[in-house]
Formats: sequence, structure tokens, C-alpha cells
Amino acid sequence: MYLFRNAISRDEASRLLASVELKPKIQELPVNESLGLVLAEDVFASFPIPAFRRSGYDGYGILAEDDHDFPRQFEISEHIAAGDVATAPLQSGQTVRIMTGAKVPNEVAKVIMLEVTEKTDSDHVLIKETMARSNISEIGEEIEKGKKLLSIGTKLNAGAISLLNAFGYAKIKSYRQPRVGVIATGSELLQPGEAYQEGRIYNSNGPLLAGLVKENGGQLVEVATVSDELENTKETLERLIKTCDLVITTGGVSVGDYDFMAVMAKESDQFLFNKLKMRPGSPTTAFVQNETLVVALSGNPSACFAGFYFFAEPAIKKFQGLPAGLKAGKGILTAGYHKINEFDRYLQAYIDEETGNVTLSGHGQSSELGSLWQANCFFKVPHGTKVEKNGQVEIWMIP
Amino acid sequence: MYLFRNAISRDEASRLLASVELKPKIQELPVNESLGLVLAEDVFASFPIPAFRRSGYDGYGILAEDDHDFPRQFEISEHIAAGDVATAPLQSGQTVRIMTGAKVPNEVAKVIMLEVTEKTDSDHVLIKETMARSNISEIGEEIEKGKKLLSIGTKLNAGAISLLNAFGYAKIKSYRQPRVGVIATGSELLQPGEAYQEGRIYNSNGPLLAGLVKENGGQLVEVATVSDELENTKETLERLIKTCDLVITTGGVSVGDYDFMAVMAKESDQFLFNKLKMRPGSPTTAFVQNETLVVALSGNPSACFAGFYFFAEPAIKKFQGLPAGLKAGKGILTAGYHKINEFDRYLQAYIDEETGNVTLSGHGQSSELGSLWQANCFFKVPHGTKVEKNGQVEIWMIP
Repeated sequence: MYLFRNAISRDEASRLLASVELKPKIQELPVNESLGLVLAEDVFASFPIPAFRRSGYDGYGILAEDDHDFPRQFEISEHIAAGDVATAPLQSGQTVRIMTGAKVPNEVAKVIMLEVTEKTDSDHVLIKETMARSNISEIGEEIEKGKKLLSIGTKLNAGAISLLNAFGYAKIKSYRQPRVGVIATGSELLQPGEAYQEGRIYNSNGPLLAGLVKENGGQLVEVATVSDELENTKETLERLIKTCDLVITTGGVSVGDYDFMAVMAKESDQFLFNKLKMRPGSPTTAFVQNETLVVALSGNPSACFAGFYFFAEPAIKKFQGLPAGLKAGKGILTAGYHKINEFDRYLQAYIDEETGNVTLSGHGQSSELGSLWQANCFFKVPHGTKVEKNGQVEIWMIP
Repeated sequence: MYLFRNAISRDEASRLLASVELKPKIQELPVNESLGLVLAEDVFASFPIPAFRRSGYDGYGILAEDDHDFPRQFEISEHIAAGDVATAPLQSGQTVRIMTGAKVPNEVAKVIMLEVTEKTDSDHVLIKETMARSNISEIGEEIEKGKKLLSIGTKLNAGAISLLNAFGYAKIKSYRQPRVGVIATGSELLQPGEAYQEGRIYNSNGPLLAGLVKENGGQLVEVATVSDELENTKETLERLIKTCDLVITTGGVSVGDYDFMAVMAKESDQFLFNKLKMRPGSPTTAFVQNETLVVALSGNPSACFAGFYFFAEPAIKKFQGLPAGLKAGKGILTAGYHKINEFDRYLQAYIDEETGNVTLSGHGQSSELGSLWQANCFFKVPHGTKVEKNGQVEIWMIP
């Protein structure tokens, strides 16, 4: 069961993954159930806003011809609440009581704020002074009909959802979040609540990947745990391939007797790679089976964490028409890293964004799991080199 | 129905809101349902990690006394897969086939990687060379028993969830996300899917607040829409007060005839304020009724947006033991803002975090709704002043 493994660079692996055709699927959902989704169409203003002459204040509307010689007494013709429309045209000497946001009749030239008026009886009001501005927002003053409101590819935040609502959109097209299955392999894995057993460990990579999928916009379908048996692993993988767009596995990728994922990769529709020139995660494997992308990560927690961001997250984003989350940059290492590696090493770290100082999270072991929660970036130690204190490193910010 | 309104500063309003006793409620949930929640207890390592001597590689375990004179032939005593334990002690001249992550027997001194071995028959292996390191992680090498893993107040991201799982925690105490009700008031409001009617507008503030609540860690209970009738408004408010920790309303707070929220504030258990020295949102009102905080925002979209972040979001966070999300800072305005206001004005804007350049989002009107989605900060124009191009402004980054 030994397989030929041709180690490729991280960049080459990313290129191979990027070359896989992933078909974004488009869904039409109620706007108010689309928060956090990515717009799959351009959206235009279906009408102007305001759609009618709108009063900016609570107050009294008057005709242009009456806008002089204040203080002045007016007869109140009617009350227009927000949502109402006037029932009769305003006559000279009359005023219409109008509320903020209400439709101002065409003949009204100005709305005088309530604060400079005084009601004299139920039908009359004294307007004490005029105002410089009309206090009326004209039709289309804010947004003209036909204006592009939001572009395809926009992630719908609360502001975007409110804008779609404002224009009466009840449903909207968005990219369906990819359906993602997670498989943690290993006969040693204990489930939450199970009593501890000598030699075994609690499954932490399954929950790690499940959380990362949810945090990064995937639709988590299932987190399966499988023992180290080929049939069992194959069966679970095949089942998830049927229902998922992406399957992420952890464990079962290296050269041990029980590492089946590599075998399944070789038998797949499209083999991508099974060895990377990087640590942790050198046995990372990827393939396509039945139009489902399978990214098989190492069972080491930090390899699993880094591998998710470098190789699985970009696919989750691509399904939604979004760029990958990791942002490349530079940082300054606060302590030297002197371990020389045959392969480029990627370590999780914390960067202080003000200073650019990068501090290794934890001990830098592949098995590191105590500090994943505080990492906000990865930094790279190129193969064959060490980095001194205050040395510059390439970094990737975690989204 | 005219009420006395004593305008207070934004700072004073924040202090009044902060003085309200909000009781965080603690829940115990399965760890794997706690992603995104805030830890309500310190968590310690219940056992060391590794909990047993752990093999770092797939390979062959040997005794210290056999670690010389390679290449050398060994008899394979047994196979230890991850999760298994050895059945018999290793004898000199024997080697144990051991998988990555498996428990290394106490007597084994070193694990030789598979790559430098060659199986000669089913029971024997040739180990070609020794290795410098033991390739064994000793008990507690990564995390000692009793070490604090996570502190109270930590937001549980995927890394934290995986860490809790690794230590066998099945349930964990977290702060319950506050139950938040939203009420949009206004007879003019049309619901999604309703046909357009002259003089009316589609409800966009309700969905805006609903989205903001969800984005900022609140548990959205209901988004109600009420017409401008006192009884209806009161009834809905009372109903939501019964089931919610926080109620956010929009509209119905200014001096118009149909603005009831101010009246209800005056009749409440604890009146906080009903007028702020700020624009937009000067009629913002807050009170406590039946131990529920009510934050009544203006019906103007940008007032609603800013008011949420300045006055409601801090309460959502406080219920979870978290600091408020807005982060104060400074920025440089890319275009002059020359409108002089009687009150401090807060405008939504986009800051380029690299350069600190702050650009007004949209037109700076209170009614602005077309650009809320692209704002990532607010900036302040102090009352009675204008800001020139390249002038420094106080900013608050939106979380």
C-alpha cells in the first residue's frame, strides 16, 4: 500500500485546486433569510427613493404663495400621517398638518417644523416664522430609479439586507453556501462524553474543522468519525461525496499501514496531489470524485488548521464567488525561529496589527492544539533557513 | 402629548445605559453547539496532553539497549495502531510496529521512522539507521494537567471548541446570547411582497436591526411591525418585554402626534433619556421596563444604524460579558464637511485602514439608506464646527 508521492509546492497545490471547476449553485431565497450570503445578481433601484415628495419633519405644509408675513394664522385642512395621502388640494390660507416621512402634496412648497408653530384651536395653527429650507425631499433625491444598488459578489450584511427591503425586494438570488462534510479518521478517537480509555484521544480535529467550516461560510452537512478500516472509510467518504460539494478529512493521509485516504485519491476521478513541500501537512492529499472536491488533511491539529485555510477555505469561498480569505503580508518575528526544515514551515501565530509584530502561538509543533484559538495569522519559515529575532517573515492573515 | 426633553450628550447616554444592571444568564450547552458563544467559566486541563507517551511517526519502537550497530534486523513483536495498547513487554532484539499517535510502551526509548526501515519478511524488519531524536512526545509535554486552557470571557471560536473537545469536555458554561426583540413602528410600512402603495414605504429598518442583532451576537426573537396607534404599540412592546432581554424599536420617538415611544418611556420603571445632543438620532429614547432594556431609535435609517452601535450593541455585548464593539480612533477626512450642526453629528463612513483616510458613505443625510452596507466606521463632526479636507476626525470602527 506504499504509494508514489511527488511533493509539490504550496503554490502549485493552490494552483491545482484553483483549476478544479467548482460550479457555484444559485438559489433564490427570501431577502430576510439571506443575511451573510453572497449576491448572485446585480440589483437595481426598482423605483426612486424617495418615491414621493417626502416630509423631513413633523409640521405644517404651506403653499408658496402663503410663505410670507409671519407670524400668521392658518386653517388646518387635514392631517397627513406617514403612509397617508392628502384627500383634497390645499387652498391659500390653509395648511396641512403633516408627519415626518409622509407624502407632501404636490402644491405644498414647504414644511414648517412643529417647533415654530402653536395650535390656537382644533382647526387653526399659528405659524410663527418661515424656514430657509423646504424640508421636503424630492422624488429620487437620494436614489434614482435604475441606479445599481448592489453588485453580484456582495456579501449581504445588515445594511445590504435593509437596502433590498427598502426597494421592495422580497426574494433575491444568492450563491448557495457549499455543502461540506467532515470526516475525522482514526480508531483512537473518543467521542464527547465517552469515558477516557488508555491510548486513545478525544476527537478534536472533527470539531475544529466543523467550526472552521461554519465560521467561513460553509454549510456543515455532517461530521463523521471513522475507524481505521478501509471499507468503513470508503463507505463514509462515498456517502458524503454524494451529498456534499466539498469533503474535508483529517488523518489517514500519511505513509502508515492504516492511511487509506491516499489510496482513495489514486483511484479517484481526478487526482490532484498527495504530498506537499510544506510542514506541517506534507502528506496533504486532494482529489475530485464525482464532482466533489476532497481535501484530505493530516491528523495533526496544526496541520489540520493551516491546511483548512490554505486548501479548503478557498474552495468554500469560490463556491460563493468570493476570493480566498487568507491575506498575504509581512511581519516581524518577535523571537528567533531556529529549527531548520527540509520543507517550508508554516506556523500559526499572533500578529499585533498595529506594530506588525508576529509571535508564535504555542510551541510550533504539528501536534499543537492548545493555541489554535488565539492564532490570527500564519508565518512562513522558508526551507533550509532560520529566522532571527526581528527578522521579516511572510505572513497570511486569517480571515 | 408634548413631553419635556432634556438633551444629554452621547457620553452621558452611554454612561446611563452602562449603569443599568443587565444580568448575564449562564447556560450549559454541548461544546459542539457552543461555537461563537462566550465562555462563562475558566477551563483547565483535566489531564495532560499527551496523556500517554505518544509516537510522532509511523515506524518501529526499539529499546535503548538495542539502539546501536545499524543496519540491524529486528523481530516484530506486535503492531500498535493509534488507540491500541501493547499486549506484552518488548524484549531485546524485538521491535514494535507503531503508528503515528499510538501509545508507545514505557520500555520503548525511540521510534524509528518507517522510511529508514525495510521489512524482510512478515515477522522481521531491517532498521537501516537510528535517529537523533526519540520521536516520542512524553506525557504532559504539550499541556500539563491543571493548566488553564481558556478564561472566562473568551469567545469560543473553532480553535477553542477543538481544545475543549481534546480535553473531553462534552458540555460547557457560556453566557446566553440576549434575547432581542425588534419593533418597527409606522403605519406607512409595507411588508416584503406587498404591492407598492402611494405614500408608503417598505420596512427597511426592521430588517436592518434584525440583521445587526444577528451579526452582533444577539438572539433575534421577533421583528414586529406596528402601526402608529398607541394601544397597538404598547401591546407589542409589552409582549416583547415579557420574552426579551432587550427591545430595540425604530420610529415613534420624535415630537409628532403619533410618537408614542416617548410616552411609554416616561411611564416606565426606569426612565433613562429621551433626547440626545447628537445627530442623527437626537430623539433617541431609552428606558427599563420589567428588567428589560428598551432602546428606542429614530426611524431615520442612518440614525437607526448609528444608534444601534452606540446604544444597543453595547448591551448585547454586556449580556455576554464582552466589551462594546465600537473602537474609538482617529482618521483623516478625504473631503471637507461644511454643514454646521447645533449638535455633534455622527456620519457613517468608510475608512481605509492602511492610510487612515475616512470617506463619507453616501450623502450624509439621516435618511441615507443606500450606503449603510459599505460603512465600516462613524466619524464625528463636533457641534458648531466644520471639518476641512484632510482634517482629523474622531472615528469609531464598526466591529
